[in-house]
Amino acid sequence: MKRFALAALATVATLTSLSASAQFAKPEDAIKYRKAALTVMAAHFGRIGAMASDKAPFDAKIAAENAAIVEDMSKLPWAGFGAGTDKGETRAKPEIWTQAPRFKAAQDAFAAQAAAFQQAANSGNINAIRAEARKLGGTCKGCHDLYKVPSN
Amino acid sequence: MKRFALAALATVATLTSLSASAQFAKPEDAIKYRKAALTVMAAHFGRIGAMASDKAPFDAKIAAENAAIVEDMSKLPWAGFGAGTDKGETRAKPEIWTQAPRFKAAQDAFAAQAAAFQQAANSGNINAIRAEARKLGGTCKGCHDLYKVPSN
Repeated sequence: MKRFALAALATVATLTSLSASAQFAKPEDAIKYRKAALTVMAAHFGRIGAMASDKAPFDAKIAAENAAIVEDMSKLPWAGFGAGTDKGETRAKPEIWTQAPRFKAAQDAFAAQAAAFQQAANSGNINAIRAEARKLGGTCKGCHDLYKVPSN
Repeated sequence: MKRFALAALATVATLTSLSASAQFAKPEDAIKYRKAALTVMAAHFGRIGAMASDKAPFDAKIAAENAAIVEDMSKLPWAGFGAGTDKGETRAKPEIWTQAPRFKAAQDAFAAQAAAFQQAANSGNINAIRAEARKLGGTCKGCHDLYKVPSN
């Protein structure tokens, strides 16, 4: 069992980090990772969105739990937009790389809003949550409009 | 902008939570979510795996950051294995549902090991990290052997 575990660990290590600087072994790994982080974030944001838009009953504890995950996830996807990850299974627009400082500013604004959203969720006040969720949804949409090719 | 944000929020809410009880609107959403959570977890575990297997230089701060994400993510995928999510774009074996208590016990063992792993990472001791990473890799592999159809 120990030997198998070591082999599994070595495989994971090889797949995801071949050197000190490279966070991803292959561009497709980075693309898969950033999509995954955004998928997890959207699912948990959606649970609070359902409460904020009265599609689900408000539960302060569940809202706070989901907001904490949203906030955690808000920092992750961006490492997956490194050089060479503009081609492949992605709807990322070239502007992500040609307007890198602007994209970085959008990430920072999003992360700041995710923190404000979490703070509102921790307050347990549905009106505060609703207000901050709207703002957070706005930052999602703002980035998608600029940097994501629309689906058909 | 406010109107757009509201519309975006409503869309997310509709996609991911149509009722108080349903965490996912459609089985494919649950499958996508659980894969995403496992992808994020594997990427961050892999960064420490690289250190543990001397493929990357040891950095205690980076190890602790990545272990915290692994521990966070260790709790998430399982909500995506609800009833009706056995078919579709998945390599999940039927035993997940036919041996549900055993699968739940494996989840709990994994989560407990992820917590022990994070504790080791916080200690900053590479030997402790290595030992707990091996055990965590073993729980990954144990579940995959039982519950995941191998890739070709």
